Parts: sequence; C-alpha cells; structure tokens
Amino acid sequence: MKNLFYAFLFFFCIQSVQAKDGYDLWLDYSSIKTPAIRSEAESFFSGIYFFGKNPTYNAIQFEMEKAIPIMIGKSPIYATDRINSAKMWLGTREELAQVIGLDQQMEIKNLGDEGYWMGPIEFQGKTYFSIIGNKPIGVLYGVFRLLQEIQREQIDFKEELSDSPKVKIRMLNHWDNLDRTVERGYAGFSIWDWHKLPGYVDPRYIDYARANASIGINAVSLTNVNANAWILRPDFIEKVKVLADIFRPYGIKVYLTARFSAPIELGGLETADPLNSEVAAFWKEKVGMIYKAIPDFGGFVVKANSEGQPGPHEYGRNHAEGANMLADALAPYKGLVIWRAFVYSHEIDEDRHKQANLEFEPLDGKFKENVIIQVKNGAIDFQPREPFHPLFGAVKSTNLGMEFQITQEYLGQATQLVYLGTFWEEVLKSNTYRPKSSSTVAKIIDGTDTGQKLTLMAGVSNIGTDRNWTGHLFGQSNWYAFGRLAWDPYLSSEKIAEEWSELTFGPKLSGIEKIQGIMINSHEAAVNYMTPLGLHHIMGRSHHYGPGPWVEGGRADWTSLYYHRAGSDGIGFDRTSSGSNALNQYAPEIAEVWSDPKKIPEKYLLWFHHLPWDFELKSGNSLWKEITLHYDQGVKSSRSFLQTWQSLENVIDEERFDHVNQLLKIQIKEAEWWRNACLLYFQTFADRPFPSEIEQPEGDLEYYKSLSFPFAPGIKPNW
Amino acid sequence: MKNLFYAFLFFFCIQSVQAKDGYDLWLDYSSIKTPAIRSEAESFFSGIYFFGKNPTYNAIQFEMEKAIPIMIGKSPIYATDRINSAKMWLGTREELAQVIGLDQQMEIKNLGDEGYWMGPIEFQGKTYFSIIGNKPIGVLYGVFRLLQEIQREQIDFKEELSDSPKVKIRMLNHWDNLDRTVERGYAGFSIWDWHKLPGYVDPRYIDYARANASIGINAVSLTNVNANAWILRPDFIEKVKVLADIFRPYGIKVYLTARFSAPIELGGLETADPLNSEVAAFWKEKVGMIYKAIPDFGGFVVKANSEGQPGPHEYGRNHAEGANMLADALAPYKGLVIWRAFVYSHEIDEDRHKQANLEFEPLDGKFKENVIIQVKNGAIDFQPREPFHPLFGAVKSTNLGMEFQITQEYLGQATQLVYLGTFWEEVLKSNTYRPKSSSTVAKIIDGTDTGQKLTLMAGVSNIGTDRNWTGHLFGQSNWYAFGRLAWDPYLSSEKIAEEWSELTFGPKLSGIEKIQGIMINSHEAAVNYMTPLGLHHIMGRSHHYGPGPWVEGGRADWTSLYYHRAGSDGIGFDRTSSGSNALNQYAPEIAEVWSDPKKIPEKYLLWFHHLPWDFELKSGNSLWKEITLHYDQGVKSSRSFLQTWQSLENVIDEERFDHVNQLLKIQIKEAEWWRNACLLYFQTFADRPFPSEIEQPEGDLEYYKSLSFPFAPGIKPNW
Repeated sequence: MKNLFYAFLFFFCIQSVQAKDGYDLWLDYSSIKTPAIRSEAESFFSGIYFFGKNPTYNAIQFEMEKAIPIMIGKSPIYATDRINSAKMWLGTREELAQVIGLDQQMEIKNLGDEGYWMGPIEFQGKTYFSIIGNKPIGVLYGVFRLLQEIQREQIDFKEELSDSPKVKIRMLNHWDNLDRTVERGYAGFSIWDWHKLPGYVDPRYIDYARANASIGINAVSLTNVNANAWILRPDFIEKVKVLADIFRPYGIKVYLTARFSAPIELGGLETADPLNSEVAAFWKEKVGMIYKAIPDFGGFVVKANSEGQPGPHEYGRNHAEGANMLADALAPYKGLVIWRAFVYSHEIDEDRHKQANLEFEPLDGKFKENVIIQVKNGAIDFQPREPFHPLFGAVKSTNLGMEFQITQEYLGQATQLVYLGTFWEEVLKSNTYRPKSSSTVAKIIDGTDTGQKLTLMAGVSNIGTDRNWTGHLFGQSNWYAFGRLAWDPYLSSEKIAEEWSELTFGPKLSGIEKIQGIMINSHEAAVNYMTPLGLHHIMGRSHHYGPGPWVEGGRADWTSLYYHRAGSDGIGFDRTSSGSNALNQYAPEIAEVWSDPKKIPEKYLLWFHHLPWDFELKSGNSLWKEITLHYDQGVKSSRSFLQTWQSLENVIDEERFDHVNQLLKIQIKEAEWWRNACLLYFQTFADRPFPSEIEQPEGDLEYYKSLSFPFAPGIKPNW
Repeated sequence: MKNLFYAFLFFFCIQSVQAKDGYDLWLDYSSIKTPAIRSEAESFFSGIYFFGKNPTYNAIQFEMEKAIPIMIGKSPIYATDRINSAKMWLGTREELAQVIGLDQQMEIKNLGDEGYWMGPIEFQGKTYFSIIGNKPIGVLYGVFRLLQEIQREQIDFKEELSDSPKVKIRMLNHWDNLDRTVERGYAGFSIWDWHKLPGYVDPRYIDYARANASIGINAVSLTNVNANAWILRPDFIEKVKVLADIFRPYGIKVYLTARFSAPIELGGLETADPLNSEVAAFWKEKVGMIYKAIPDFGGFVVKANSEGQPGPHEYGRNHAEGANMLADALAPYKGLVIWRAFVYSHEIDEDRHKQANLEFEPLDGKFKENVIIQVKNGAIDFQPREPFHPLFGAVKSTNLGMEFQITQEYLGQATQLVYLGTFWEEVLKSNTYRPKSSSTVAKIIDGTDTGQKLTLMAGVSNIGTDRNWTGHLFGQSNWYAFGRLAWDPYLSSEKIAEEWSELTFGPKLSGIEKIQGIMINSHEAAVNYMTPLGLHHIMGRSHHYGPGPWVEGGRADWTSLYYHRAGSDGIGFDRTSSGSNALNQYAPEIAEVWSDPKKIPEKYLLWFHHLPWDFELKSGNSLWKEITLHYDQGVKSSRSFLQTWQSLENVIDEERFDHVNQLLKIQIKEAEWWRNACLLYFQTFADRPFPSEIEQPEGDLEYYKSLSFPFAPGIKPNW
C-alpha cells in the first residue's frame, strides 16, 4: 500500500505538471530521479540556515519554496540555530566570518561582489553544505546554480564550486514602446503594463526577475531605444519605481532610454544642445527626480543621431559632447550613460559599414568614464551572420560594450528555431589582433586585453506577453544563452545548449542530445537558406519578414540591391581597397587575408567581395553553384530538424511537442520560400541553370515579389 | 493507510490547482465534495456510450477527459455497447429513436436544433442517464450543463432537465484589428495571431471555443467594425478558415466585418455604390471565395456611414440598399448581413440620440429577410447607464438584434469590478409598450412579441491576450452573463451571478454570497461615482479613461459639455418637447411619464431634463445635493467592496485574492478621482457648497484637468 501511495503520488506529480505551456522557462523544476542526489538534497534542505536577513534572502527562500517541494517531494525546513538544527549555511563572507578560515575568506573575496562559492564546510565535527557570496546577490546566484546542478542531476555535494561574472553589466534591452507594442518583438506585446502600474503588480514581473537572476542578468533597460520622452515624466517614474523595487532583491538595476530631445518635448526648452546650460540643468533635474524614487537607478541608454533620432549633431556637437553632458548629470549618483554606436546619418555614407568607426574612432579618449559605447556585434545590423564589428579593437581609451540581438529580427522571428549561442560564440571568439595579437572580441568585452573596468554585454530582448515569453519555445534558449555568455563570454555554445535543454526538458530525457543537435546546427541552416556566403540585408522591407532580394527604391542603404549588388557581372559588396575599403577598418592582419577572395573565410566572401558568377570556390564549384547548394542545404537541414523532432514525439510532453512541431513545419515552408525566392531572383542575373543536384526551386518570382505583410508583428503599421 | 492515501491525494489535488491565474474561467473544474453526487457521477461516467460519431462528440469527449478526472478522481470509461456496459447515453433524438418513446421524441423535437434534454431513461429494466439533442450541438450543450450542475453540486440525477436557447444568434463581436490591437480592449491584445495562422494553431483557440460553447455562444465576428478590408483577401480567408474549422464542432460560426469600400480597396473599382453591377459582382465573388473555404460562414457585420466609415450614403443610397446588396450575395449560402444601427453622420444632428430612429424607421420593411439591424442597448453609446434604445418597438417589419458592450469602455475598463448582468437585465426588462402594451425589450429581441424569426444578441468582446482573458477576473462574469442572457434573456442577473461565482470559486466557498453581493451592487456603484441621475458622456476624451466633464472643443457631440449642459441655470439635456424631443421616439406611454421630471425614474432624470440646481427630488433634496450624495455613495460602495473582499482572504486562493485586492484598491482611487473631479467641476456652475454629510471632494480641479493618458489601452495612440 505504501508503495502504491508513492507510486500514485509520483504519477500525480507527473500528471499535475503535464500542461507544459513553457511559462516556467528553465526554472520548470521537476522531480529528481537519481536516489543519491535526491536523498542528499533532502538532508541538506531539512536544515537551511540563513546567516542574516535581507530582501535577497527572502527571494532565495521564495525560490526554494517553489523548487524543493517539486524536486524532492518535501518542503524545505529552516533551521533555527546555526549549529544543531542547521545542515546548510547561506550567507555572505562577512556573516560567516566566524565559521570559515582566513584562506577561504580570501578565496571568496576574490570572487567579487557577485561571485559565489559553494561546498561542504566542516565545523566542530559536522559538515554544512554552504553557499557564500561577498554580497547577498552572490548567495542568490549560488542558490540558483545549486538548484540547476541538482535539477540536472549532476551535483556532487562533496565538491567545491565557485564562479563569478566576467562582465560587469549584463543587460537586457527591451525595445518596448509605452503603448505596449514592441519594436522587433515577435512574442506578443510588452510585458510592462504601464497603464495598470503603479497600482497593479502583475505576478509576471517577479517571474521575469527570477528568470533573469537565475542566469545572472543584472540590468534591464525597459524602453525602446527609439524612445518616447514620456517615460521621463514623474507619473511614469512612479511606475518605473515599482518595477525597480521588485527587481532590486534579484540584483537587477533598471535603466531607461533617454530621448535626446526631451528638454524640448518635456522641458519646454527651445534646444537640446548639450552645451546649453538650461539643457544640462533640465537633465540634472530629471536625474535627481529619478534617483529620489529609485536610489540605485542604472542610467540611460541612448540612441542618438541614428535613423532619424535626435542627437547632438543637430547642434554641431559630437557624440562625446552629447554623452558627457548626460554623464555629468548621472555621475553624482554613479549612474551610467550607455551610448549606442549604431549610428548613421540622414546623408548616406559611401558604405554604412564604415559609419560607426568614422564617427567614434576620432572621439577615442574623449568620453567620460561613466560612459560606455554599446556596439552591435557587426557593422551593418544584426544580419543572420556578420563578421565582428571593426570598432572592437579600434579604440583604446573608450569603454566598449557588446550589443547582441536576442529577438530574431532577421533570423526567422518567432516562427523559426534558430539557436544563437553558436553565432555569438563565433563573434566572441573572433580574433581582433588588437590591442594584442591574441586579442578576441571576448577579451575586449570583458576588459582582459584593454584593462577596461566598466564592461557591458547587452541583448535586445525577445520577451513578450506570449505565455511562453518568447513566442517560440526555443527562443527561450537564446535568452538563456545570452545571460550565460554575458556572465562568461568564454563558455561554449554547446555546453549552454546542454544546460538549457536539460533544464527545460529534463536531463534524463531520452534523446536530449538530438535536441542539442538541432540547436547547434540551426544557425548555420538559417544562414544557408537566408544569406549564405556573406550575403546580407536581402529581407522583406520594413517588417524584415521573409526574403526580399528585389527590394529597391527609397533610401539606398535600406534596399537589398545596395547590399547584394547582383548583376550579370556577379554578386557581392566590394569592401576591399577597390571598393569602399571598409576592410581597412580592421587590423592589418585581417585586412590582408580577407582582401583575398581565395583566403577569406567563405562565410564572409560576398560581404567583402564582388565576384563573378563563375568564380571558383574551395570546393571547386562555381560561385553560382555554391550559392544554390547552400540554399538547398538550408532547406534540407530544416527538414531534418522536423524529422529529428518527430522522433521525440513520445518522450516530450504533448503541448510542447505540438508547439514546436507546428513551428518546424512553418520553418520548412519559410526556408523553401527563402530558397525559391532568392534563387529565382539571383538566377535572373546569373543566367545559369540550377544544378541538377539540388531540388529545383519552385514557383514564380513575380508571385513571391507580390506577397505583402502589412500586419507583420514587430512594426508599427501605417493604416 | 488507505485513508491516508486518499487524504494525501485529495490534498495534492488541492495543491496542484492552487496556482489559479484565471485562465480556466468558469471551466475550472474541481473535486466534488458531496459524497452522493460524487458516487453517482462516478457510476455514470464509468459507462459513457455515444450513439454516433462526429466531431462534436469528440469535443464532448475532450471536455469529459478534462473535467471528470478532476471532479471525481477517475478517468471516464467509454462503453463499447449501448446496453451492457453502458450507463450513460449520449446522442441525438434520431440516433436514440429505438430506445426512447414517441412522446419523449416529440418533447425533445420541440427543443429545436440547439436544445437538449437530460435525465434517466429506463430501458429493459436498467436506467441510463441520458443527454439527448436534436443535433450533436444540443448534446454538447447538455453535457456542459451537466458538468456545471455537477460542479455546482446541486444535480439530482433522477430529475429531468431540458433547455433551449431563446435567441437564434448569440454572438461575440471582437473589435480586433489585424495588427492585434483591440479597439476598446483592456485585456492585452487580440488573441487572433494572424501572422502565425494558418500554420500555427494556438491551443487558446480551442479553450476559447470551449468557453463560448459552455454558455451557448454560437457566433463570433473576428474583426473590428472599424474594419480593414484586408481580412477579405484570400491569404487572410485561409487563416480564418483554420479558426472556423476549430470552432465548428463547438457549434460556433464565424462572421467577418465587411468594409463597405472594399470594392475600391481590394477590387480596384472606382466605386462601392451598392447599385453598381460591378460592385455587386465583386461581393458575389468574395462571398463565393469565402464559402468555398468556410461552407458554414455566418456572414458580414457592417458598420456603415458612421464615425467616418464608408457606406451607401456616399452614393446617395440608403442603408437598406447597402445592406440588401450584401444580403443578395450571401443569400445563396444562407449567410446573413448584420447591419449596425449605430450611425451618425459627419454633420451633427440636432441630437445624436435621435439619429438611428430617424434613419431606420423610414426603412422599416425594406430590408431583405437575411438582414438584421444590430441596435446598441441605448441611443448614445454604451454609457454607464442608458435608457433602452427607442428603436426597440419602433419598427414592425425589420429584424432587430441587441448589441451589448461586454468590454467596459465606459465602465472602468479593466481596473474596475463592474458586473453588467444587473444593467443588462434592467434593459431587457424595460417595458417598450410596443408592439404590445406588455412588450419588453427581451420580448422584442427573442421574437416573442414581433414574430421575428431571425433573432440576435451580440456582445462586444472583452477578451484579450491577458492570461485571465478579460484583464479583471470579474470581467469573466460579464462574458459569462452575456452568454447566459443571449441564451435566455429572461434569466435574472442574480441567478447568473450565483452560477458564475460558484463555478469560478467553488459552490462550497464560505462567503460566496459576499462575492455575489459585490457583483450585484457594483454597477449601481459605478453609475453613482461616474454618471448618476442620468448624466452621461462626461469621460476623458478619446481613451474614455476617467472623468472628463470639462471636455470641449472639436465636434460638439464628442464633447462632455454637449451632453451635461451644466450652467448656472442648472444641468441636464432637455430631450422633452421643449428640447430635442428625442423622448417622442419612445411609445406615448413612456414619453408622457418621462416628460415630467417629477415622474420620470430619477436614474434617467438628467438624460431627458435640464433642471435647476435647486430642483427638488423625491428625497426632498435639491438636485445639487442629490448629485453630491450619489457621487459620495459611489465611493463609499467601492470601499465596501474592498472591505468585503478582504474578509475572504483566507478562503480564496492567494493569486486570485491578490489580483482582485489590488484592482479594488485601484477602483477606490478611480472612484474618488471621478467624484472629486466631477463635483469640483460641477460646483463651478452650481456655485453652492458641498453638503456636510459627504466626504469633501479633495484636490484641485486644474490638476485633474491636466492629467493626460496618451498610452491608455484600447486606442491607437498618435505619436
């Protein structure tokens, strides 16, 4: 009977969590199956002792109440004294000073404000499993790590484990508008319900904070970089304060976007000139008002003089003058200015690729120390694949931060499974050859090679009101991977895929490695059916949904023709010295190799070279044939993903299986659409047949060109 | 041990459903506590036999699989034969013809296509609990009723029970735009994810169909009446078809809004003149295309020549000519035209109140038989309280349908608890004196007094992407009440509140009657703090959020001043013969009584009369004093709701308790805001002190006037 009892209970546990709609993310705790881990965990969780009291410890307790009953079938028990009833110790180094040795204190101190140490501590003949940080937030990070290790059923409670973040500011950039639309958002609408704030606190805000803290994200910018000044009004700051109060115990600071022209729009001034004293006074007053409500406010994120946004150029001032004026206002409160390097003027430069370096290299050393320049991973705009941005390594005395795009604006939006970990790893591992010959983007970002103290990795959020947060279940893996890489830019994307998939589907899921396989191959597949061999910016206009290699008219550098330059003579953008010479913005070691179309990695070929259709590639194939093979391979890969997924039908819960299954079918259609549209279009220039090895592109080019999507998500439609 | 086992199981059942986020609506099945009902249900559900096969029976089975395991702790068992293993019979009258008597067949036949009968049937010495309809949909309705009766723990399986709807078309009107914004929607965004359709079917679509079917809603119009013609394009019809396919087994037909100018926008014609043969051909082709995809398509909902929407007037044609042209296109497929009576022209009429009657009375008898005129409950626009629309009873040979607004555009939107059942009951029970002296609005709507066969009740949906569907948990009660009143317009709102609250919170909840008490009193409270004594249309401009009695400028009948006409001489809109004489559009019996400010029900006083501030009311109070007392009472009522709710803290689950608790606090603030703003404003005309009995209005009128909400939900902001 007793066995039946537990059998039933177990069955019921399973049943009761069957409705897996993805809301719980990677915090979807489940019952631990490995007996040894389960019983050890059960023992430690029966005597949890906190060495202090503070809101972050309350957050730890809240998390334990959620996790532990599900993991081990029993509620956590809190010890009333540190010795007799305690089995697990939680606290800061200072709080535990009396029970740990000096060496260990030193070891922990070196982990910094956000690091943690965990392991067994022997004290007066008894072992206490302990999690210690230098600050409470370190303890929280440690507890999340512990829960993850237990959940993945790989913990050894006898071993010591410590970690600390390599990047200081690990930030989500929401491109959320105040009317709850999200620019380039594909998971519904903004989770910030401004209208109901401050009176109504959606429980989702807390789950959002939990999820971020669990992967080490410690900063969020709540509003769109194409900002509305309204967010800086007192009534909105009152709303922001509520969010900041919720996020604080989770170690998350709030940032806001600052519209450069706010002094005019909100302050009634006639100018926003950064050197005007009234303008400076306006910002000082605003900043003071904000800090009064939010004493740990993070600072401003600014997009200025880019794509029509206002900025210092209107007044003949440069980016440094603009940023420094805001920095002065924020400095007394230790606030930061995060100034975006994604700039290009109304007048079209010869090559948009060069714009950021042209504007920011001359300003090197001129920015105040509480300013960070936030640089997109590549020089164009979050294309499916881009070589790293040439600003990395080009400046010496300027704080540079990385901006990745988690939301899949150009990578299938919410209908495609594209794991971005591999792509980001590729960027971070890219050798910059500056400042040191061994330098990589990661070593610049985390300050290793630059000595930069104020470090930043920002990701443009893919989060919305969809129940599963990210629209596509696998979009969660990109949120997760971003957080993990911001914490440690040297992590391998395979390891991250392993972690995420195990936490999401369970470590013992038979076939979990198949899921990881799909993830690892998904980015290359998407690049193949979208923009192989260095092609870029050939998507549909405005909404960026689907292929649009024929897009022309209007501003040149917003068209596809500008970027692919296909003609009877060949295809590709010449950025060598015979062309725009953007290559020259990279280190000479790179410029030299990449200048040669026979030596450049072929994934970047058409990014830098305009080549004839019969140019011979390493494979011996002509350029035309290689292009067609890549597009065809992309489609085949997407089909293989579906096939692999369907082999998991009986091991994955029905709701999530079906969700991904439907989306993978859409992905195949969209991959075919990309292939057919692009190849039929390029064929009109190449004037060559499709090779027999590939599936012949179907359909009519005019039909593909006729498709229109005025209500595609992520944009503000005009109607 | 066995007891412990069940005790634990029971405990676990409770635990496992603790996270009550409101998604499950009134279908939030829970364990049955009454032993007799539980065991009887257990018995019947162990031998369910379907007399036939069809998709609606699959839907029944789906529902049973959801409900029964939770209700009785055991899965349903399906019988393989109708006699031996069967204990419950489900099927249509025809399917069961061999096992039921002729009298009973007759009785069931009289219940019509959608009616159901349930009860015990004796056959060859054995009793079968049976649910029988004339069509499968009747069986589904019967099953939902059965589950509700069991859930409310009030069923007697020995008794017979039958019911059938009194109104033929019971419809939700979604005001959802194709970009997923919702006009006057306060629960997030449109649940129709057009972009991902047809490839991706959100499980929510099925839950939506279940919820509607469970209360008898059998029609939905998917798109906004301020329609975009795009919905009629083939690519969108392909998406609509997927929804229609999902809804069909649940007895729900899909309707679309038709933009009158679509022949120009989509067809490339130069005119949309309904008498133009190319225009007629355009619509015939469109309709044919739609029916090819959706053979049971319901028809079109049309807003024409109103608030700037295109219509037949542009071509010198009248509403009948416009509607009949569409009706001709739809007639071969038995499709309907639902033509809205909410019309007013660009030129301001003397009194907007009169517009619909002026336009539609002369057209009586001129509409085709597949046209229904959909009339809002009152003549202005869904104000907190309106007298019934004078079109009801004014026409003899025109199909009239009712349009209620479920979404609380003018009634607190999603931050206020306002149960609308009481208000709708008030409207439906209103005596029209036409066509019979005993006629009521309900008797016109359901055809009792008119002989009208094609009957309709439509409700403007309050549904959005919010997890709990309606923003405010109690918004669900309005969706529920609408469905129930559409099914039976004679139901009492108290009974409906009882049903909904029991299904939502559990029939055995101690204090359930307190919840019902809040509901029943909530509409009167809102009217008191918003628009007492017949005041109307004094809300904020455009977004309609909060008070705006000072709104002036622009089109006169979009201002507040136009409606309240406050001045030193008094307040109110004179619609008697000395004023606009709109009263004359009602039956003489009404016009006579309501013309007299001493006889008219005081709730309509200022709707029809302009009266001096010292006019004496039945209470003996002056008009000024009575107005202040009403506003003050509204605030006090809202405070009492919170107090009552908080007395339930320990009996309601934490998540829903906290949700409503937060919103009731907001409601009090908003009630105070209404009271303070309106009384301070009206005082500037009344020039009298506030009576000492009331809480003195606080704040500064200029401050209230300065508040602005450009990002309020439910509108398209301009920025």
